[in-house]
Amino acid sequence: MLIVQKYGGTSVGTLDRIEAVANRVIQSVKEGNKVVVVVSAMSGVTNTLIEQAQYFSKNPNAKDMDMLLSSGERVSSALLSIALNEKGYLAVSFSGRKAGIVTDSMFTKARIHYIDTKAIKTELQKGKIVVIAGFQGVDEQGDVTTLGRGGSDLSAVALAGALDADLCEIYTDVDGVYTTDPRIEPKAKKLDKISYEEMLELASLGAKVLQNRSVELAKKLNVNLVTRSSFNNNEGTMITKEDGMEQALVSGIALDKNQARVTLRNVEDRPGIAAEIFAVLASENINVDMIIQNVGVDGATNLGFTVPQNELDLAKNAMQKILNSKTTIESDNAVVKVSIVGVGMKSHSGVAAKAFKALADEGINIGMISTSEIKISMIVHEKYGELAVRALHECYGLDK
Amino acid sequence: MLIVQKYGGTSVGTLDRIEAVANRVIQSVKEGNKVVVVVSAMSGVTNTLIEQAQYFSKNPNAKDMDMLLSSGERVSSALLSIALNEKGYLAVSFSGRKAGIVTDSMFTKARIHYIDTKAIKTELQKGKIVVIAGFQGVDEQGDVTTLGRGGSDLSAVALAGALDADLCEIYTDVDGVYTTDPRIEPKAKKLDKISYEEMLELASLGAKVLQNRSVELAKKLNVNLVTRSSFNNNEGTMITKEDGMEQALVSGIALDKNQARVTLRNVEDRPGIAAEIFAVLASENINVDMIIQNVGVDGATNLGFTVPQNELDLAKNAMQKILNSKTTIESDNAVVKVSIVGVGMKSHSGVAAKAFKALADEGINIGMISTSEIKISMIVHEKYGELAVRALHECYGLDK
Repeated sequence: MLIVQKYGGTSVGTLDRIEAVANRVIQSVKEGNKVVVVVSAMSGVTNTLIEQAQYFSKNPNAKDMDMLLSSGERVSSALLSIALNEKGYLAVSFSGRKAGIVTDSMFTKARIHYIDTKAIKTELQKGKIVVIAGFQGVDEQGDVTTLGRGGSDLSAVALAGALDADLCEIYTDVDGVYTTDPRIEPKAKKLDKISYEEMLELASLGAKVLQNRSVELAKKLNVNLVTRSSFNNNEGTMITKEDGMEQALVSGIALDKNQARVTLRNVEDRPGIAAEIFAVLASENINVDMIIQNVGVDGATNLGFTVPQNELDLAKNAMQKILNSKTTIESDNAVVKVSIVGVGMKSHSGVAAKAFKALADEGINIGMISTSEIKISMIVHEKYGELAVRALHECYGLDK
Repeated sequence: MLIVQKYGGTSVGTLDRIEAVANRVIQSVKEGNKVVVVVSAMSGVTNTLIEQAQYFSKNPNAKDMDMLLSSGERVSSALLSIALNEKGYLAVSFSGRKAGIVTDSMFTKARIHYIDTKAIKTELQKGKIVVIAGFQGVDEQGDVTTLGRGGSDLSAVALAGALDADLCEIYTDVDGVYTTDPRIEPKAKKLDKISYEEMLELASLGAKVLQNRSVELAKKLNVNLVTRSSFNNNEGTMITKEDGMEQALVSGIALDKNQARVTLRNVEDRPGIAAEIFAVLASENINVDMIIQNVGVDGATNLGFTVPQNELDLAKNAMQKILNSKTTIESDNAVVKVSIVGVGMKSHSGVAAKAFKALADEGINIGMISTSEIKISMIVHEKYGELAVRALHECYGLDK
C-alpha cells in the first residue's frame, strides 16, 4: 500500500517523540508499505515564532510571516529524515516546494492549486521514505506560502489525493473520533468508521480531531482518512465514503460551550431584512451559527441566532447601527449547543422526537432548535450541557 | 550607493538587537542608499539545530542537515523584514533560493556557481529593502544547500559582486581589523584600510574578523569590503585593492597559540622524501603550516614543520610508519607562532632584520623562521608570545 502518514505537533514535540515517530514509520515500511510522511512543527515552535514577529509588529506582513512560519516544519522534517537514515532506512526531507505543492498567493492562508508529485514519485521509486514539511507550499512566483490553521492535515490529504494513496493516516494525541467527549461521558465509544459528512458536522461542532477543510478535501478527493494516536497502537477511526457502511442511526453527540444566543424582537417583517442583518454581521467577520426565524405576526417577527461568545458585544454593536428603535436585542451568554450527528437520521423519522423526550425527561428546557439532514442542534442552559450530552448518548444507545 | 550589509549571529542575537539592526539599515536608506541586507541565524540557533541532529545521528546526512540548518537564517531574515516594514520602510525577506543563489550539490559546504539577481533587482527598483537569508542557496536540482563556515559572509560578498554593489559592509561584534590583538597589546590601533592580501595573511594567522574564503572572493570580484561593529557607530576597516593605498611597511602582528613544532633529524636526503612525508600527513588530513628544510650534509638532512597542537600525536604516528630507524622525531608543544604582515615589506629590505633585533633585545630565541612576500612568521617559546607581539608592534611603530 501507499500510505501518507501525518504527525502533528505533539507527536513530534520532543526529540524522543520524533524517534518514536521514526520507529512507527519503519514499522509501516516493514509491513510492506511505501510511506510518505508529513510533519508539523514541533509543538510550541510556531507559537514562539508568532510571538517573535509580534515583538516587532501587531500586524506583521503576511509574506514575511510565511517565510518565518514555514521554518518550523522544515526543522522537524529534516530531523525525522536524519533519524530514519540513521536507523538504516533511506529517507529524504522535502520542503513544501520540493514536494511540488503549488498554492495561490494568499499568504498565511493559501489554498493549494495543484501538486506536482514527480519529485516524490522519483524518490519513492528509489525505495526512499519521503518526509515532507507540512503546512506550506509555494505560489506561482516561487514565494513560500503557508496554508493556515490545520495546514499540515491539509498537506497530507492533498498529497494522498495527488499520489492516489491507499490511506492517509492522521496521527494526533487522541485515539480517534468518539461518540461524544469522553471527559463528559466516560461511556463514550471510539467509532471505527464515520462518513465524511458526519465528520464535517462533528468537526464544526467542536470535535478537535480534524479541521473541516481537511475533511472536505478528503471527501472531494476520495481519500480514505484514518485518525489515530501516535502515543499507542490502538486502531483509529476511518473517515470515508458513506455508502457501504453499516448505518448507525446516530454517530455522535457534540457539545459546544462557546455559543451565545441573540434574539431580536419586533424585527420589521419585510423582504431583505434578514439579509441586511447578516450582511452587517458578516462585514464584521462574526461567525453566525444557528439562525431561527418564525413566521411573523402584524408586520413584525422575531429572529434568533447564535454567535461565538467573544464576538457577542461586537455583534450587538453592529446591529444597533441598522435596527430601528422598535426592535429590542436580547442576548444570553449562559448557553451551550448540544448536537446529534448521524447519517442514519436521514432515513429515519423520530430521531428528533427521541432527543426532545430525553431532554424533557431530565427537565432540560430547549431554547433553540435547528436541524439539517444529518444533524440536530439544540441550545440549552449551560448548566445542563453535560447532562444533556449524557442523556442523548444513552437514548441512542451509543454506549452499546 | 548600492550597499550590501551583512549582520552576523550576535548582531541579530536577540529581538532588540534585530530592532537595532533595522534602525541601522534605515539610517543607511535615509542617507540615500539602496540596501540589500544579508543576515545570519540568531546566535545559538545553528548550534541548537546541530545538537538536535546529533541526538539522532553522529553523522547526519548532509542533505537533511542543509534543510535543517537553512531554517535559522530564514527566521532572522523574516523577523528583520517585519521590523523594517513596521517602521514604515518597504522590505521583503528572501531565502537564498529566491535571491537566486545557485550552488553545487556539496551539501553543508556548497560553493556558489552563480547568482541570478533578477528578483533582487526587481524589488530594489520598487524601492524595497531586500533582506536575504545568508549561508544558503539551492543546487541545480532545487535542493537547499548551505555554504559551510563563514557562509553568510560569503553570501554577502558574492551578492555584492553579482549586484556590482559599491560597498559590502560586514557587521560583527568587533570594530574592525587591528594592528594586533588589543587584549595582548592595548596600544593596538584599528586599521582604516588593509589590502586583500594582508587580510588573507592575518585571517589565516588567527584574526577572527573574516574567513579567508570571503576575502578571497572579495578580491576576485573586486568587492570593497568594510568590517565594522553593529554595536557602535565607529568607522570600520576597509579591505580593498592594494594599489592606491599609502603603503605601511607593516600592517599587523598576529599570534597563533595553536601550533606545535616537529623536527625530523637525520632524514634520508634523496629526491621525493619530503613529498612522501607530507603526502602521509595530508592523507590524515593534518594541516601542516610552516615547513623548513636546510641543505643536507652527508646524505641526511633535518626537516622542521608545524602542525595544530591537537593533531601532533596523529602526525607523529603517521610519520613512524614511513621513516627509517635512523631518523628521530622531536616535537614541542610549548611554542607559539608570531607573524608580521605587511604589503610594504615587499619593497623594503630590513623588515626581517628589524624583527629579529627586536626579539633579541628582549632575549627571545627564535626557533623557526618562514617568510613569504608579505609575511614573516617565527616560532618562539610560548612564554614569550605576548612579549614578542608587543615588541614587534612597537618596533614597527604600529601604535603611532
